[in-house]
Amino acid sequence: MRITRTADYGVRVMTRLAAAPTGTRMTVAELAQESQSTVAFTGKILQRLVGARLVVSHRGFEGGFELARPADSITLLDIVTALDGKLCINECMPEGAGCDRAPTCAAHRVWLKAQEALAQVLGAESLAQMAAGQPG
Amino acid sequence: MRITRTADYGVRVMTRLAAAPTGTRMTVAELAQESQSTVAFTGKILQRLVGARLVVSHRGFEGGFELARPADSITLLDIVTALDGKLCINECMPEGAGCDRAPTCAAHRVWLKAQEALAQVLGAESLAQMAAGQPG
Repeated sequence: MRITRTADYGVRVMTRLAAAPTGTRMTVAELAQESQSTVAFTGKILQRLVGARLVVSHRGFEGGFELARPADSITLLDIVTALDGKLCINECMPEGAGCDRAPTCAAHRVWLKAQEALAQVLGAESLAQMAAGQPG
Repeated sequence: MRITRTADYGVRVMTRLAAAPTGTRMTVAELAQESQSTVAFTGKILQRLVGARLVVSHRGFEGGFELARPADSITLLDIVTALDGKLCINECMPEGAGCDRAPTCAAHRVWLKAQEALAQVLGAESLAQMAAGQPG
């Protein structure tokens, strides 16, 4: 039960963007360097963050990437969901493929409770809070 | 971020064993049928549960599998840990490969908090509680 490498590095990229002064646009190369990753991998992550409307891409000479909305309106859960899909710790969760045992299965309600606890923690943490301790 | 199929079915097997009257030994075939799985897969799961000392295997005519200790002393976390390894939602967790950014990374403390929340829920649920609603 682990987040993907994509989500892990995606959080790095988003935290770095959030730590930059408002209006700053960062290039893929800068973000790759600061998140200790490759340009190719960072590019793929950014593409998905743009698709999820968490990041905006600007073309041209002054182009680059910036957050699509204020960092205090983005949570860690938003970022994980954008990159790994909705939380789904087991098949029987609402987001899973389903399981016909769910209505009578005693474990089902515990998996659900565990998933809710996870969502609660990740959803309570804003990107602004995470970026506050990072270099701008 | 999902538990493995092994852990999912392992919980089914353990719940079924816990629902049986004390002293009952169940065969792989019975457990496979009741957990809606194959004998081969159930056999592999049982082997690991025996290895983790959650289940005892008895050979011979009256042989079969039973819980190694009372169901109220086994938690859902014990079962998941036995089959999937220690909870580790990201590389930077104490159980992970490590990450040199952890000391200054703002996300690290949130991952840790999320993992603790998950462990708290899974560790608070005993197998006896889960088995209580199951057919004996």
